[in-house]
Amino acid sequence: MKPNLIPNLIPTVIPFLAAPGYAHTQAWVQALQTAMPEEQIVAFDDMTDEAKATCKVAIVANPNPAELQQLPQLQWVHSVWAGVERLVADLGNTDLKIVRLVDPQLANTMAEAVLAWTLYLHRDMPAYARQQAQKKWQPREYVAARQRTVSLLGLGALGEAAARSLLQAGFTVCGWSRSPKSVAGVECFNGENELPEMLAKTDILVCLLPLTPDTRGIINASMLAQLPQGASFINFARGAIVNDVDLRASLESEHISHAVLDVFDIEPLPMSEWHWQYPHVTVLPHCSAPTDRKTASAIVAENIRRYRLSGGLPQTVDIARGY
Amino acid sequence: MKPNLIPNLIPTVIPFLAAPGYAHTQAWVQALQTAMPEEQIVAFDDMTDEAKATCKVAIVANPNPAELQQLPQLQWVHSVWAGVERLVADLGNTDLKIVRLVDPQLANTMAEAVLAWTLYLHRDMPAYARQQAQKKWQPREYVAARQRTVSLLGLGALGEAAARSLLQAGFTVCGWSRSPKSVAGVECFNGENELPEMLAKTDILVCLLPLTPDTRGIINASMLAQLPQGASFINFARGAIVNDVDLRASLESEHISHAVLDVFDIEPLPMSEWHWQYPHVTVLPHCSAPTDRKTASAIVAENIRRYRLSGGLPQTVDIARGY
Ligand SMILES: NC(=O)c1ccc[n+]([C@@H]2O[C@H](COP(=O)([O-])OP(=O)(O)OC[C@H]3O[C@@H](n4cnc5c(N)ncnc54)[C@H](OP(=O)(O)O)[C@@H]3O)[C@@H](O)[C@H]2O)c1
Ligand SMILES: NC(=O)c1ccc[n+]([C@@H]2O[C@H](COP(=O)([O-])OP(=O)(O)OC[C@H]3O[C@@H](n4cnc5c(N)ncnc54)[C@H](OP(=O)(O)O)[C@@H]3O)[C@@H](O)[C@H]2O)c1
Repeated sequence: MKPNLIPNLIPTVIPFLAAPGYAHTQAWVQALQTAMPEEQIVAFDDMTDEAKATCKVAIVANPNPAELQQLPQLQWVHSVWAGVERLVADLGNTDLKIVRLVDPQLANTMAEAVLAWTLYLHRDMPAYARQQAQKKWQPREYVAARQRTVSLLGLGALGEAAARSLLQAGFTVCGWSRSPKSVAGVECFNGENELPEMLAKTDILVCLLPLTPDTRGIINASMLAQLPQGASFINFARGAIVNDVDLRASLESEHISHAVLDVFDIEPLPMSEWHWQYPHVTVLPHCSAPTDRKTASAIVAENIRRYRLSGGLPQTVDIARGY
Repeated sequence: MKPNLIPNLIPTVIPFLAAPGYAHTQAWVQALQTAMPEEQIVAFDDMTDEAKATCKVAIVANPNPAELQQLPQLQWVHSVWAGVERLVADLGNTDLKIVRLVDPQLANTMAEAVLAWTLYLHRDMPAYARQQAQKKWQPREYVAARQRTVSLLGLGALGEAAARSLLQAGFTVCGWSRSPKSVAGVECFNGENELPEMLAKTDILVCLLPLTPDTRGIINASMLAQLPQGASFINFARGAIVNDVDLRASLESEHISHAVLDVFDIEPLPMSEWHWQYPHVTVLPHCSAPTDRKTASAIVAENIRRYRLSGGLPQTVDIARGY
């Protein structure tokens, strides 16, 4: 379906910019175009010079900053990813405003992943898999969900949705954020001072923090040591939030019994990395919560529509905080 | 704490009888005694001849039928297990009434297991484990829970609790029973005639049927063939409900993509069995829903208290139906 262009009402085309070699640019252009037939969405490579000269908003997926610099009138970018640490690093010293994806569908998918891999640990699936490999028949002691404390680092869009799913499944749930929060049924902690109290009672620690200057490497030896002996760890946020050497040491000493890792410093995780064959690590290929192109496009469309009508932007990323 | 015995009000001691060599007889005697301090609970081996002569009710865990025959006044037995196919086979031709365990705590634990291993299949954990072993980084396509139909064979105490947990997690849920049922949010089917319609749309089939003459071997080649190509199967009920040769053939032809088996014809599963090393089978050691000795004892106590007061029994097993 060709959009019905009315040049005076639609001042600029909206480009989509992704990382060099990104495979899904055309799929995004189509999904975005379908979600906003009143706009003209194009891949950056298909922009005319005139379109570049007048473009005010772009939709991005880890774009090449050099390409963004070819858009002199650009005021803001809408990311189709929820995590924007790359954009903050690339654009933090410009005047460009960054809007990140906040999609309830993404939060649902992440909440489901947190529930799925929490149950995986809670119901001892890694241990049963090892027993199967050894042909060992040995039921393990059952622990009720309410006797397991699952703690979320990060109580944002994803953390809050995860907390609700975990509560529904009967777990005892704690959460940690920068500013004070209140989530029904969740014991909330905030700031560095309150972190030790939460860690001390955590059986399963789940990371859903954004990667920022404050959170880079925050999960280190000292933090892991504050967890009870035998606790386990799930990272669904970003690899660089964890000090990888410290995590390995805490697994080797068996202080941490198992880690489920979906995100790594370098992705795809290089073949030479220790995680692949470590028996108490579950490696996932950044699959915990993929963006749904259709729902994400609908949310981007809604935000752009509001901008066209009012000139107003949705909440933008706070460059100083980094998220 | 010694119970305060008032001989005229407490006419008989209540024995606990288990299978020969059972390891937890004393733990059960203690848990039951704590739950009903007004009664005197003893292991069968500790019964006096007088106690045997007057005993009307016994608490059992797969008892030796020869021992039950030494209790001439016995009227009913209360099983601490939910599945009573062994008791029905052993006592079906006597006048003894059988009461089985119906424990909401057990139903909760089973519902959690159904949710946990459904999510395990839904989120492709077996495939990701194989990829990890091959150091292969490859996110798989995400399918939303509402696009997966999970069908429960059996909508009894356990099946209904499982259905509720699956619905909460967003799955599309069907259920099958002998008699017509209605469970909010669940598409219900009953009887052999309606089974094909349910099977045809099932992605994950979960067995929670009792083992009876009607259900023995019911999951056979013809039934598995009615599932869509690539469906998976979870058995948390009893091994003998499945025709094991047919299941293996359907896995070998890749018609069934994966089976999670918690129960087997012979338990512990012999080392020589094919399941242990079959890549598309997850073997569990009958751990999906262990009886909780404390909550089970409280329920047995409540049923015995009501019997002492009124002479009435809770619902008893229908020997002809087999459950
Ligand atoms: N693996 C995947 O597939 C995947 C998919 C999507 C997203 N992600 C990751 O998930 C992250 C979280 O997403 P979101 O949408 O939930 O973000 P969000 O809504 O911005 O929430 C971030 C949470 O972290 C807290 N936080 C930030 N810095 C902190 C600090 N220094 N100390 C304590 N708490 C801090 C925030 O506290 P306040 O509430 O006080 O602000 C907030 O609760 C993303 O940044 C992305 O990296 C991963
Ligand atoms: N793996 C474990 O750890 C574990 C733990 C506990 C129990 N179990 C097993 O789970 C089984 C189910 O327990 P439950 O408490 O849910 O039993 P239940 O309350 O008696 O429910 C049995 C269900 O199966 C249906 N059913 C029986 N025969 C049928 C037939 N021929 N065709 C169609 N439907 C049939 C019944 O239909 P109606 O509703 O029409 O009667 C009912 O919905 C137990 O028998 C036990 O073997 C396993």
